[in-house]
Amino acid sequence: MSNAPIQTQQIAIILVRPRYPENIGSAARAMMNMGFSELILVNPLEPDQERMRKTATHHAAGIIDTLTIHDSLEEVLKPFTFVAATTTRKGKKRHGLITPQSFVERVGTLSTDDKVAILFGSEDKGLTNDELRFADALVSIPTMDFSSINLAQSVMILCYELSRKPPAGEKNPLRLANKQEIGKVHEAIENLLHAIDLHNPENPDHWAARFRNLLSRAGLRAGDTSLVLDFIGKTLKKINGA
Amino acid sequence: MSNAPIQTQQIAIILVRPRYPENIGSAARAMMNMGFSELILVNPLEPDQERMRKTATHHAAGIIDTLTIHDSLEEVLKPFTFVAATTTRKGKKRHGLITPQSFVERVGTLSTDDKVAILFGSEDKGLTNDELRFADALVSIPTMDFSSINLAQSVMILCYELSRKPPAGEKNPLRLANKQEIGKVHEAIENLLHAIDLHNPENPDHWAARFRNLLSRAGLRAGDTSLVLDFIGKTLKKINGA
Repeated sequence: MSNAPIQTQQIAIILVRPRYPENIGSAARAMMNMGFSELILVNPLEPDQERMRKTATHHAAGIIDTLTIHDSLEEVLKPFTFVAATTTRKGKKRHGLITPQSFVERVGTLSTDDKVAILFGSEDKGLTNDELRFADALVSIPTMDFSSINLAQSVMILCYELSRKPPAGEKNPLRLANKQEIGKVHEAIENLLHAIDLHNPENPDHWAARFRNLLSRAGLRAGDTSLVLDFIGKTLKKINGA
Repeated sequence: MSNAPIQTQQIAIILVRPRYPENIGSAARAMMNMGFSELILVNPLEPDQERMRKTATHHAAGIIDTLTIHDSLEEVLKPFTFVAATTTRKGKKRHGLITPQSFVERVGTLSTDDKVAILFGSEDKGLTNDELRFADALVSIPTMDFSSINLAQSVMILCYELSRKPPAGEKNPLRLANKQEIGKVHEAIENLLHAIDLHNPENPDHWAARFRNLLSRAGLRAGDTSLVLDFIGKTLKKINGA
């Protein structure tokens, strides 16, 4: 509820399917350099702590000691209220990519009750489309000729941007809805769409995706989700009662 | 003489006594990502190109192919007109440290005839005081608890800062004096100091250092050096003729 600037403790770095323990260690060292400490691994290929420690150096050993390893990104994201996914501009053109700088500006508008996750995909394949769906912001680091940036270098650039200047913009005193709350809203929407027979047989997720997108842009706050859930609950009751 | 923004081709990355070929390769990849191509090594411990290539990846192989290796920093710097040295805040307190952002602002005031070198010291010991003397600017990346940043990560941050936004500030249409021209001025000053018996026996470099410092802050342009050399030459002639 405070209006103080967002703290580095509110921000977690999440590496999804990282392949090389050395990159995890280097990412930890970069985090440490810039004042971040919460590192989460989802399905790392080789969670070899000794190899991580080599590149983390003793400075960032504490981050390796306290990192957590999970197998479901969806579960891990539940407590987070704002999720950014990093992506390259390679391949399919994506809409709504923002620069690290714009991302920092958006983070600057969050409250000290918000919890921010920054997702980085595997070194070779990045994040899947399903994983990108969790993201409220898609962040792309501009590069020459779309050349791919080393994983730990990407972590450094994001952490550096977040630490280099005080966040700008008007602050929201209330935190955003977390991913668990949002998940319930999505489920309710799917139920409602099903109840009113709004579906595209060629692309069953079409309408739900549009609503998810709309709600993501709206930036639902904690109080908003109960409002939407109430509304959908009452609508469904009416439909089923009819 | 042009007023166009400074080009990445005007900027060289110089690694002084780098220890690990893998760091050189990672630095090359970071340079490539951000659009830089001129890499210079001064006395690398192990100039093993195969190990460099592994971390450079095929994207930055061209930078490894064209890097040059030298044994005298002073010689290498001769064509450069603006030299920045990166340094940590560890150890002795240094005056006049600037942030990467301020450095980019200063680079933004240079002409397209200027040639910029950014020096990075070895992974364990950085740059020596003698090497720091060549620098017109000492750049320090702010870190948490002064923890040391990996060499390639430091290169990435500087290149990222230089590429992330158009340079600001009023442009100077004329290039600065290069290090060879400056070297002649320093030599002339030492001759003059000797001729007028201005010396501190406890610290023979004391007065020369103060003049070097003053001229560095003045930012001598190409035309200025001949002016100073003429002046000192005439003064010496007068003294010797007397």
